[in-house]
Amino acid sequence: MREKAPGGSRIGLVMESIRRRIAGRSLAHEEKLPSIRATAKTMGLSPSTVAEAYERLGAEGLIRSRPGSGFYVVGSLPLALREVAPRIDRAVDPFWVSRQSLDGGAETIRPGCGWLPTEWMPDAAIRRAVRSLAKAEGALLADYGPSRGSLRLRNLLARQFADEGLRIGADEILLASSGTQAIDLICRLLLQPGDTVLLDDPCYFNFRALMRAHRVDIVGVPRTKDGPNLAAFETALKVHRPRIYVTNSAIHNPTGSLLSPQVAHRVLKLAAHHDLTIVEDDIFSDFEPEPSPRLAVLDGLERTVRIGSVSKTLSASVRCGYIAAKAGWIEELVDLQVATNFGGPSPMAAEIVAHVLSDGSYRRHVAALRTRLAKRRREATTLLASLNIEPWIEPVGGFYLWSRLPDGINAADMARAALADNVVLAPGNVFSAGQTATEWMRFNVAQMADPRLPDLLRKALTSATTNDNGSNAER
Amino acid sequence: MREKAPGGSRIGLVMESIRRRIAGRSLAHEEKLPSIRATAKTMGLSPSTVAEAYERLGAEGLIRSRPGSGFYVVGSLPLALREVAPRIDRAVDPFWVSRQSLDGGAETIRPGCGWLPTEWMPDAAIRRAVRSLAKAEGALLADYGPSRGSLRLRNLLARQFADEGLRIGADEILLASSGTQAIDLICRLLLQPGDTVLLDDPCYFNFRALMRAHRVDIVGVPRTKDGPNLAAFETALKVHRPRIYVTNSAIHNPTGSLLSPQVAHRVLKLAAHHDLTIVEDDIFSDFEPEPSPRLAVLDGLERTVRIGSVSKTLSASVRCGYIAAKAGWIEELVDLQVATNFGGPSPMAAEIVAHVLSDGSYRRHVAALRTRLAKRRREATTLLASLNIEPWIEPVGGFYLWSRLPDGINAADMARAALADNVVLAPGNVFSAGQTATEWMRFNVAQMADPRLPDLLRKALTSATTNDNGSNAER
Repeated sequence: MREKAPGGSRIGLVMESIRRRIAGRSLAHEEKLPSIRATAKTMGLSPSTVAEAYERLGAEGLIRSRPGSGFYVVGSLPLALREVAPRIDRAVDPFWVSRQSLDGGAETIRPGCGWLPTEWMPDAAIRRAVRSLAKAEGALLADYGPSRGSLRLRNLLARQFADEGLRIGADEILLASSGTQAIDLICRLLLQPGDTVLLDDPCYFNFRALMRAHRVDIVGVPRTKDGPNLAAFETALKVHRPRIYVTNSAIHNPTGSLLSPQVAHRVLKLAAHHDLTIVEDDIFSDFEPEPSPRLAVLDGLERTVRIGSVSKTLSASVRCGYIAAKAGWIEELVDLQVATNFGGPSPMAAEIVAHVLSDGSYRRHVAALRTRLAKRRREATTLLASLNIEPWIEPVGGFYLWSRLPDGINAADMARAALADNVVLAPGNVFSAGQTATEWMRFNVAQMADPRLPDLLRKALTSATTNDNGSNAER
Repeated sequence: MREKAPGGSRIGLVMESIRRRIAGRSLAHEEKLPSIRATAKTMGLSPSTVAEAYERLGAEGLIRSRPGSGFYVVGSLPLALREVAPRIDRAVDPFWVSRQSLDGGAETIRPGCGWLPTEWMPDAAIRRAVRSLAKAEGALLADYGPSRGSLRLRNLLARQFADEGLRIGADEILLASSGTQAIDLICRLLLQPGDTVLLDDPCYFNFRALMRAHRVDIVGVPRTKDGPNLAAFETALKVHRPRIYVTNSAIHNPTGSLLSPQVAHRVLKLAAHHDLTIVEDDIFSDFEPEPSPRLAVLDGLERTVRIGSVSKTLSASVRCGYIAAKAGWIEELVDLQVATNFGGPSPMAAEIVAHVLSDGSYRRHVAALRTRLAKRRREATTLLASLNIEPWIEPVGGFYLWSRLPDGINAADMARAALADNVVLAPGNVFSAGQTATEWMRFNVAQMADPRLPDLLRKALTSATTNDNGSNAER
């Protein structure tokens, strides 16, 4: 983490401006900086202020002077994924929610996070699986395991898919360390820097972060209650010729919406016509009471890749996801996964997952989660209504309520205010490529039981209302 | 491996009996199972035992209940009954050795692979750690864990580094899913497509594969017995301006050579002068009887990044590596790891590793490995001498012998011939960016105890001698 600009605010201003240009790559590695005189003129500051700022940036190792020639960018990290700032002042960018949620202390309340509370997970079944692991063959505990990952788990997944109408073999499945890593591998296979990727707007914020890591351009398609807006989708395909479209069909993150059969069919037709590959992240599908239309199922993996993981209903600690794709692609993905990670998830992890999935109690656990969440969604809706916050839809499952704040409230301001009280929120624009969700917030109903929360939310709302010049989402 | 029947042998008995009947087709596709009551009577068990067994078979997807009607066999799937066989016609490229080694069957002999046999690993200590994990806090089993990875393990690593003279804090360490993934993250931070990377020639073949995945150019620097050839190193820096140099200092892969203090010092001076970052992969360092010079230690992480993992001495299955780098870079790497994998290794894996590393027996295990390997290196040298194959040096530790084949033998041809007999070898050019190691082979002395091996190697040599138009390394 970089420190705040030292010294006077004018010097700091110059430093910050140069840092941003380097981070945003408007100043590249080895590129010459504007002269001290030129910068002074542009910024309306004295040359000695700019000279001091350059000097300090030099001391930080960000730029270097070449005698008789000027200042040059050095050691620039080509991949600046975010603006750097101390924790609480951190820019509200796609990393904001993840980092605050992951690293917050035990006392943190996390209506913004993307997972269930620990005590909702199938603790007894996981412990049974770990105890059984302690008695596994030595090879499973010590060796790398097969390059596609545990055959036992892949067979279990294939059976699960068959229940949903997707009949594929275990060879069309590759285990990955997480759903995210699964998508990352697909991106490595299909994308080149400068390509365009289609995302829902809003979409899971980490899709945006991941695409930044791949240096690709993002085009957002507005999400309707039935899936992507088809007119916008078609226009985007025609105008931007994206290589892939990454989406959740079943219980979309953050909105909780589903895909209607008509939209699903139309999306696939358009994809075929424009040679688009669809990456369907099915991570929330277990929360559905009834399976809704899935692109991968309709399409039979023709131009769809199915992604998933067990992080939301079984364990996030175990780190195990999967990719289902046509066999030829899987073969390529195996090589890529060997090159970049020398394999996939831990064979121990895969064994734990397979054990829990085969455990008779697991289906009951998931059914109980659905019932419990339905109750929590109702309770949270009531709480939010008392704050004049209104969910967009009433989702059929899952733990998110994508909600509109009272008029004039900037979600990023509210999130910053809440963070001061150890409440992590998920402000709308971290989900929005087009920054169109300034007044929206994603709430995780499973993380809203703390009796202090209503007052803390009210306080954050008030604070955001009075903060009239602080709209700084993703500054 | 199929699990032992979970919970109670009687339930397992019922499950096994149904499984057999389905496998043997005495229960066909879509056929109705005997009722719970009937099975209970036949097997002399209680109905509740049979009900639980049916429930679990249902969770496995083998049978399905139709409300009001009973249980039915689910349609059979195109299941892969065994792993895909290694593809014998595959090009001998940097992926060749990994894929053949990972996916070969139990009967494969693997002098070409990069790990120790299962029974050399600290089985008892791993099982103790797994049993202890079964009693861990619920959060450790269910949640994502902190973004840098287990603090307990990072503290242990920091202490280990301090013993070697590298004094850093736990915040300068980031856990990763593997040593390979650690280097991959660094590449993502520091490289852009089209950049140039310096590698030793020969070097670990997967470095070459990884650099392909990053679309960067590779320049190879010939490896001498004391480290990189300095003249070639300096020329490469001047001519190609590489961004990073990826290397092993301690027990270099594949040669087993060390870095002399003079070469180490000179490499760092040249790196500083040409603004080069060094990625030092320390994965084999535990095999050294005495620590040899390390760039990261001499340099104090100024322009060096240290990488490692526990795959070679503790467990490859656990999937846990690390990056030690200056704090500012770690901060960037955390974001990158969240974006691309939503975190690092499984917190469960980190706990297992921390437990074994703290286990009093672990140091004795590593010391015993060194003694055992010294003996195996002598034995393998004798065997190779009988085939007119000569190791380049006598390494001070580790399991590799980088060896020259008899005149005129193409290593790729020999490797192909051996694979037909289920022997995986590691031919020289997979390690060589310049394809200068046509007549070299890397042997893993720990994988050469099979009494059939001498004859099989002799046969492969003969076959490679007579095959005069088959030189097709990396076709």
